[in-house]
Amino acid sequence: MQNDTWIAAAHMGTSLRVWVHAEGVVTPLLAQVGGTVTEAALLELIHSHLRPDAVTPVICAGLDVAGFVPVPAPPPNTAVAVESGDPRIALLAVQGLSQQKPADLMGAQAVQVAGFVDAFPDWDGVLCLTGPQSRWVHISAGEVVSFQTYLTGEMFGLLGRQSVLGEAVQSAAQDEAAFAQAVSDAMSRPERVAGALYSLHAAVRAGAARADARGRLSGMLIGTELAAARPYWLGQNVALIGEGGQVARYGAALQAQGVPAQIHDGAEMTLRGLQQVRAKLV
Amino acid sequence: MQNDTWIAAAHMGTSLRVWVHAEGVVTPLLAQVGGTVTEAALLELIHSHLRPDAVTPVICAGLDVAGFVPVPAPPPNTAVAVESGDPRIALLAVQGLSQQKPADLMGAQAVQVAGFVDAFPDWDGVLCLTGPQSRWVHISAGEVVSFQTYLTGEMFGLLGRQSVLGEAVQSAAQDEAAFAQAVSDAMSRPERVAGALYSLHAAVRAGAARADARGRLSGMLIGTELAAARPYWLGQNVALIGEGGQVARYGAALQAQGVPAQIHDGAEMTLRGLQQVRAKLV
Repeated sequence: MQNDTWIAAAHMGTSLRVWVHAEGVVTPLLAQVGGTVTEAALLELIHSHLRPDAVTPVICAGLDVAGFVPVPAPPPNTAVAVESGDPRIALLAVQGLSQQKPADLMGAQAVQVAGFVDAFPDWDGVLCLTGPQSRWVHISAGEVVSFQTYLTGEMFGLLGRQSVLGEAVQSAAQDEAAFAQAVSDAMSRPERVAGALYSLHAAVRAGAARADARGRLSGMLIGTELAAARPYWLGQNVALIGEGGQVARYGAALQAQGVPAQIHDGAEMTLRGLQQVRAKLV
Repeated sequence: MQNDTWIAAAHMGTSLRVWVHAEGVVTPLLAQVGGTVTEAALLELIHSHLRPDAVTPVICAGLDVAGFVPVPAPPPNTAVAVESGDPRIALLAVQGLSQQKPADLMGAQAVQVAGFVDAFPDWDGVLCLTGPQSRWVHISAGEVVSFQTYLTGEMFGLLGRQSVLGEAVQSAAQDEAAFAQAVSDAMSRPERVAGALYSLHAAVRAGAARADARGRLSGMLIGTELAAARPYWLGQNVALIGEGGQVARYGAALQAQGVPAQIHDGAEMTLRGLQQVRAKLV
């Protein structure tokens, strides 16, 4: 196992992450991709790590072809062989999870759940997986009972880059007090958020700081999600999985509701989830 | 007046509309523009209608340089001269309206209000101006008392073209029953909309019709706006100004709440608003 040569890969949002395992060393690689991930995009990222004289197993989460297992179900602990156009790789796809009602799907983030359950097998509660899509996942006895997906991160990106608000929220910094106030406002009056978005633009034109507008936009959207996801987190053990400022802001927003949440790194949980799949296959 | 030669122009959302008035004939022109409108974009659209030997007045609404008049105020009935780089035109900008609290701005749509007030001088009630941004405008005694802007149309475009939902709602048709149900759901439980968006994608992957998903997305967003704008329309005279399917859907959604709204064409009201400005200047 120590010298096992294989490649772990996961496609989440617009990121394709790869970890090349060779001679006991793990090398991370990252590419930005749009839409669904093709084998060509995967090969472009990994081709220099392939050997002409051997077949390298590639275990990939988030491939569209893999299909979905309906919940309740354990998070993915195996992978299915899928056809590959390149003889240097043996492509194995990790399945996602599906839910019938309300209709929902979880692609590559399901391996983060698998990584978390592998690390904390006795944990019962709710995971919140942040990203372009965020997912609240109810875990009990090592199984995913139900989950719900939000577009919060993606909406923040679209509104912040491509809408009339784009100019108002162009700021490297984000005001944390404005964020906290907007979370609180959105949670107590979620129906007011739609009418408050454009006022960010108007307020900046009237002299308000862009860092303030950016904090308020983030707070409005995360607050709206927390208001909607209340049945998931209220009175529950909560763990957050994600990266950077985004997962920290979910943590701060939950903390303000009196819900302390442990935070785990998204890439680390993804890798751990893929590694436990590999360990069970070998 | 009948033979007055001049050009009316308005920049709303990503459309630049122009009406060339010459020899008693009005010729409409239309260009798609991104971001703020520059004089260059305007000249490109109108240059073949300019005369080298005369100065043509161009009255334009929605120019960034024009500034904004704080409400309460009548809708714009005049225009201010702004510097132009082209000697063939005399550029006159129509000011927009601003509101201090909640912070808000209304650019070219203010001339639609002017056109409506010109057509119905004794009307008291609420106008809803639809478009990429929609605005609810309280009119009393010929003045704009207050207004509120929503990003509903723009969000529908961004989510429908550029988000993970894009594929699910790719449909020329839109199911009207699904729309009506989604409006009703969003108005009674607006806090649930954030958690229902991604289910459109999952439902289509599970076999639901795209026309149904498109209707539901439209209904969720318009229903969210109506829930937030309730203080504007409840128990009020309501008139809608806008174009095509969009304004018709606002009308259907209001009708389902027992609020019958007269519908007026957006381009017609824009032109009428600019024409009354011209009539007062000549």
